[in-house]
Amino acid sequence: MDLRPLLTESEAKILFVVADGLGGIDSEGRGTELEAARTPNLDRLASQGATGLTYPVAPGITPGSGPGHMALFGYDPVEHNIGRGVLTALGIDFDLKPGDVAARGNFCTLDSDGEVSDRRAGRIDSREGTRLVQMLKEIRLDDVEVYVEPVKEHRFLLVLRSQKEVLGAQVNDTDPHRTGVPPCEPNAQEEKSQETARLVSAFLEQVREILAEEVPANMVLLRGFAQLPRLASLRESYGLNGCALAGYPMYRGIARLLGMKVVDCGPDLDSEIDALKAAWSHHDFLFLHFKDTDSRGEDGDFDGKVAAIEELDRAIPRLIELQPDVIVVTGDHSTPSALASHSWHPVPVLISANTCRVDSVEVFGETACAGGGLGHLPAKHLMTLALAHAGRLRKFGA
Amino acid sequence: MDLRPLLTESEAKILFVVADGLGGIDSEGRGTELEAARTPNLDRLASQGATGLTYPVAPGITPGSGPGHMALFGYDPVEHNIGRGVLTALGIDFDLKPGDVAARGNFCTLDSDGEVSDRRAGRIDSREGTRLVQMLKEIRLDDVEVYVEPVKEHRFLLVLRSQKEVLGAQVNDTDPHRTGVPPCEPNAQEEKSQETARLVSAFLEQVREILAEEVPANMVLLRGFAQLPRLASLRESYGLNGCALAGYPMYRGIARLLGMKVVDCGPDLDSEIDALKAAWSHHDFLFLHFKDTDSRGEDGDFDGKVAAIEELDRAIPRLIELQPDVIVVTGDHSTPSALASHSWHPVPVLISANTCRVDSVEVFGETACAGGGLGHLPAKHLMTLALAHAGRLRKFGA
Repeated sequence: MDLRPLLTESEAKILFVVADGLGGIDSEGRGTELEAARTPNLDRLASQGATGLTYPVAPGITPGSGPGHMALFGYDPVEHNIGRGVLTALGIDFDLKPGDVAARGNFCTLDSDGEVSDRRAGRIDSREGTRLVQMLKEIRLDDVEVYVEPVKEHRFLLVLRSQKEVLGAQVNDTDPHRTGVPPCEPNAQEEKSQETARLVSAFLEQVREILAEEVPANMVLLRGFAQLPRLASLRESYGLNGCALAGYPMYRGIARLLGMKVVDCGPDLDSEIDALKAAWSHHDFLFLHFKDTDSRGEDGDFDGKVAAIEELDRAIPRLIELQPDVIVVTGDHSTPSALASHSWHPVPVLISANTCRVDSVEVFGETACAGGGLGHLPAKHLMTLALAHAGRLRKFGA
Repeated sequence: MDLRPLLTESEAKILFVVADGLGGIDSEGRGTELEAARTPNLDRLASQGATGLTYPVAPGITPGSGPGHMALFGYDPVEHNIGRGVLTALGIDFDLKPGDVAARGNFCTLDSDGEVSDRRAGRIDSREGTRLVQMLKEIRLDDVEVYVEPVKEHRFLLVLRSQKEVLGAQVNDTDPHRTGVPPCEPNAQEEKSQETARLVSAFLEQVREILAEEVPANMVLLRGFAQLPRLASLRESYGLNGCALAGYPMYRGIARLLGMKVVDCGPDLDSEIDALKAAWSHHDFLFLHFKDTDSRGEDGDFDGKVAAIEELDRAIPRLIELQPDVIVVTGDHSTPSALASHSWHPVPVLISANTCRVDSVEVFGETACAGGGLGHLPAKHLMTLALAHAGRLRKFGA
């Protein structure tokens, strides 16, 4: 629901601690990663607060990072599904303009039959990626500006900018999402995108020539063609002056899209917390993003994810020292190491605030949270709960 | 949400075991029927899987069999409310055409004042029902074809088919749903259905003459006037090749409406499981319907319902032998024997699959499931969860 008519002033500060891919499943008889981890600080927060499980999108739906975070910030993730191209652009500070068409690119390997043999060209390193991007920067197309920017390793950003006409972004991925087949042709899914498809096709033709002699990255795959969405900022939606502490591009990008200040910091937790401390007095909503839980889950590394969770737990006292009025600890989705990928399993959450109705849960874990006082709820409601605990929402109706 | 953009291929097989009216309430201090029953096999599945409670329609809403099953198959039961007439037609393999108006009929008994004294004419047997239907087949109406077909015992199907004009189906039940009052007059609820109401009225006039001397079935009651809805099949919605093992007409009808293959089998569990085994290799979604739990609940027979649940439990090993990748055991609604009718109480569910997050629930029962890892969720999400566990859904968003 629209919270704007209910907003009221408050000095209270809200801290969202988002452990990416936090949720897990039990694959080794030791419980989930969160349950196997030694987490005295998180357990104390859970036992003094309210806990539950969240659905980022809906039961059974595995969220991407975009929808997972949009839900955490209180935005319906289906209604506001941000394209991958846009997230990629925002994540590298690319100054995307309304109307620009952005896509995420991968360098890939084609075999002698022209079929994709490696969708990531052996995960070439960032230096090689940057060298190849430099070559693609030569590409010129009629009537549009072309931007190609390195992201990380085999990943890059493509942006087409037209001063003359309105380009559409309804073009299919050229990434076939599997190997053993050729890349897909770019086709328009609607009239307005036909010119875009033509331009992309011309771009790819030049790429093929430029990369012909390269090994292993002799071609590119494009996906997630998208344009900047119109989104209300956290200030417009909730009256919050938000700040993001996130080391990884995509999360910085989402935060910027919602009008949060994005502070420069390294991708490690210590850098993020230092930056958090420096930003603390200037903001009333602080979003701390911790990536390692997801990375280790994606690696299929149960013990690594356990260790990441324990690292986060050890950092909790430094966060509590800052005396947030409301602290929310959760994830944007589950990444069970047993699946080595994002999953649909609901995500544990704890809220700690003076106004919590303390439930019977005494440890922070999926099984315990299933019986928590918050119940099982769509993740998009967490922001409303945080605002309520911060004293920022008036009564609805008389 | 629309799952079609997320669908991906998988060999995994999904088995839905639907114990009709499974949920109950405690009326004898022994727990619910499911809790009173000895169910070692279901308990094992519950303890190795994830459990919860489902709302077929919404909290407090008592579902009919149609909405209960539509929700199980992932279709919003309010948006897709199929009329009883249509379900009746489908259940007897009647070849209903788009535009046909179908109604469910009951033979009933009117007393000398013309008031309904028995809404089911003493539940006459199927042979007597068929004899009476034969008499009604003589009825002719101007401009429409009239079909009267026996269903079972006192139940029959009426279909009106016009080649000339578009008939509406917004006509009220003539069944007053209680005794001591006369049948209701058929009236149109909208302009387009006025001709239908006139035809039904003419039909009933002839019925009254034909049955005048019959005892006890001297009249009929009609309800659930409806037309064939347009529904996406399970294949269109989920890419599933579905098969239904159901002995009773209505459930076969719903399955057929969703494009499932409906296999001939008896109404007893053994026949159904034999048919399931034969169909197993040809399908990836198998729906096994068990009616007795509902029938004994409707009878108000607590011990009978307990026995039915125990019969189902004993059959579970035969189902597990088939090695389904995902097994869902639940009901389409509750039918507490204390109420001798469908009820609004949420329905216990268990999901068993390799990718389950196992919760702390160790027995399959309403009280235990209330604290299960699936939470309390709309039944329509079960299909999404099953597809997720079957590896049939890609990530949503980037």
